[in-house]
Amino acid sequence: MAGRRVRPTVGQVAERAGVSTATVSNALNGTGRLSEETRQRVLEAAHDLSYVPYTSARAQARGGTGVLGLTMATHGDVAVPYTEIPYYAELILAAIRAAHERGYLLVVLPASMSSWTWLTTPLDGVVHVEPRVHDPVLSILAKRGIPLVCAGRPLESRRSDAWVDTDDGAALVDLLDHFRTGGARRIAAVLPDHDDAFPAILRSAYDGWCTAAGQEPVVETFTPDLAGAGERAAIEAALRRSPDAVFGVYDDSGRLLLEAAAEHDLTVPRDLAVACFSDDPGYAHLDPPVTTVSMRPAEVGVASVDLLVGLVNGRRGLRRQRLLAGELRVRASSA
Amino acid sequence: MAGRRVRPTVGQVAERAGVSTATVSNALNGTGRLSEETRQRVLEAAHDLSYVPYTSARAQARGGTGVLGLTMATHGDVAVPYTEIPYYAELILAAIRAAHERGYLLVVLPASMSSWTWLTTPLDGVVHVEPRVHDPVLSILAKRGIPLVCAGRPLESRRSDAWVDTDDGAALVDLLDHFRTGGARRIAAVLPDHDDAFPAILRSAYDGWCTAAGQEPVVETFTPDLAGAGERAAIEAALRRSPDAVFGVYDDSGRLLLEAAAEHDLTVPRDLAVACFSDDPGYAHLDPPVTTVSMRPAEVGVASVDLLVGLVNGRRGLRRQRLLAGELRVRASSA
Repeated sequence: MAGRRVRPTVGQVAERAGVSTATVSNALNGTGRLSEETRQRVLEAAHDLSYVPYTSARAQARGGTGVLGLTMATHGDVAVPYTEIPYYAELILAAIRAAHERGYLLVVLPASMSSWTWLTTPLDGVVHVEPRVHDPVLSILAKRGIPLVCAGRPLESRRSDAWVDTDDGAALVDLLDHFRTGGARRIAAVLPDHDDAFPAILRSAYDGWCTAAGQEPVVETFTPDLAGAGERAAIEAALRRSPDAVFGVYDDSGRLLLEAAAEHDLTVPRDLAVACFSDDPGYAHLDPPVTTVSMRPAEVGVASVDLLVGLVNGRRGLRRQRLLAGELRVRASSA
Repeated sequence: MAGRRVRPTVGQVAERAGVSTATVSNALNGTGRLSEETRQRVLEAAHDLSYVPYTSARAQARGGTGVLGLTMATHGDVAVPYTEIPYYAELILAAIRAAHERGYLLVVLPASMSSWTWLTTPLDGVVHVEPRVHDPVLSILAKRGIPLVCAGRPLESRRSDAWVDTDDGAALVDLLDHFRTGGARRIAAVLPDHDDAFPAILRSAYDGWCTAAGQEPVVETFTPDLAGAGERAAIEAALRRSPDAVFGVYDDSGRLLLEAAAEHDLTVPRDLAVACFSDDPGYAHLDPPVTTVSMRPAEVGVASVDLLVGLVNGRRGLRRQRLLAGELRVRASSA
C-alpha cells in the first residue's frame, strides 16, 4: 500500500537487463529470436522493477483479445471453492500478475461454465489446472483451437502437450527419505482415488521407494469429498496398521492426521511422524508445526502463463514441458 | 481439493432458501422485485451449497459481456505489487468468487493500463479500489458510462456515488479505547500523506478521539514508498516524542513498529503498546503477536461485486453506499 518508485520505463528495464528496448519488447511478448536465458533475464528485470507493459492494447493490435483464461475444473461436477484453497489461491494471484507483466489480462473461469460459454468467451489462450483423464474441458477447448497449457501434467501426456508441473514424485521421495533418516521403518500413505495425474504419480513414487527400501507398502485410499469423511476413514484404517510415519496429500490432510493421532493417544512425532503436501502457511503454526511438501503454486502459475504467452505469440523453439522442483519444509511433526 | 457433493441445482438453492427457482434467478441476477432480506437469503443458500450459475451466457443473452472489471490504481504511477499484499489478495479472490456466484466473470486490471485500454476492454461494470482525489481512472470510466462501484469511499462522495467501505474511523476509535483501557495515556499516530480517503478518515477519527479524551495529538506523517523508508523515519520521529502506545495503518507498519521499538530498547507491550491496520495473518505469529484492525477485504470484495451486479442489471431501490464494521483483533502487543 505504499510506493517508492514512479512507474518504471521500458528503458529502465532494458538498462537493468543489459539489452535494447526492442529486445525487452520481444521478451515480454514472447516474439523474436531470443535465447531463453536472455528472455528470462529481461523478465526478471521487469519483475524486479515491477514494470507492467500497457496491457492488451498490443495484443489487440495483433488481432487477439489480450485476455487469457485460467480454468479449474479438476473435480468437475464437485463444488470446490478453489479461491479459498491456499494452493489455488496462490496460483491464481501469481498468474494474474504474470499475465499483467506480459501485457495480458487473465480471467479466472468458474468450474461450472456451460460448454457454450467455454467455446464463446473471447480468449487468446487458456491455462487449464490439473486436467483429468478424458477431461471434458480439454476436449471443448481443443475444438476452439486456441493455445492451451496444463498446470499439472495430463495423465497420458503426448509430446505435443504443453504443461507445467511440480515434480511431486521426486518431492515425495525426499519426504520418505527424511522420514527414514528420522528412524521410520513403516511409513503409511493415505491417497485419494481420483483421475488427475497427482495421485497416480505419488502412488508410483511411493511403491518404487518401498521396493528400493525393502518396506511393505501401507496404503489406504479414499474418494475425495469436501467434508473429508472419506479421508478420515482412510487415515483411521492406516493407523490401525501401526505405522511409525504417515503422510497425506491434500490441504486438510495434516490437520486430519493430527486429530487422528490425538484420538489414538499417539504423540507426534515420538509415536508417529506426520507430513502432508500443502501450501497452507498455517501448518507452520500448529502444535506441533507440520512438515509439508510445497508444490510451489506461484511458480507453476507464472511458468504456465509464460509458456502460454509464448504459444499465443507463435514463439519458436519453446520447451513445451516444464517440471519444477517441489520443496520439503521440515517442521516438528517429523523431526 | 476434494468434493463431497455433485454440483448443486437451482432447485436445491430454492429449497434451502424457501423460495421459487424464479426467485433464485432474480436474486442472483439482481433483477425482479425482491426484498433485500430475501435476496440475501438466496445468496447465502447459493454460497452454502457452492452453487455457481452458468456464467456469462445469461449476461450475454441480455446484451452484456458477462465480464466485470476490478481496478487497483490507488497509488497511480507507483509500481505496487497489489496481488502480493494480503488486503488486496483477499479482496481479489473473494470478488472473483462473488462474481462467479452471480453468473459473471471478473478480470483484474493492472494499475498501468493505458486510457485507450480502459475505454475499450469489454466490461459490463467496474469495481474501482480506493479512488483518489481527482482520480484519473474514475474520469475515464465515467466517460464510458458503465456502472462503477468504489471499494473504499471517494474522498468527496456524492449521494449518487456507489461505494462499499469499512468503517475505519469507528474501528480506530475501538483501538484507541482499547489502548486507553490498557493504561495508555499518550497514543501516537503514524499516518501516510496520501490522497485517498483512508488516511483522512483516520486522521479525523484520531483528532476527534484526542479532543474527547483530553490527549494531545502525537502525529507523524510520511509519503508512502515501497521500501518503507518514509514510514521508518516517521516512526522514529514519533518514538522520540515518548508515546506509551503507537499505531500504523499499512500492512508493514506492525513489523516496522516492532523493529523500531527494539532499536529503542522498548519492551512491547510493557514500555510501548503497538498495533496496526492490516489483514496479514502473519501478525498472529510474531513475537509478540501484534494487535491488528482487520478491514475485512473479503467482505468488501463480495459487497462491491454484489452492488455492481445490481447496478449492471438496473435493480431498483439499491442501497448505493454500504459501510461494513472493521474488526479489532487484540493480541499480546497491546494486552
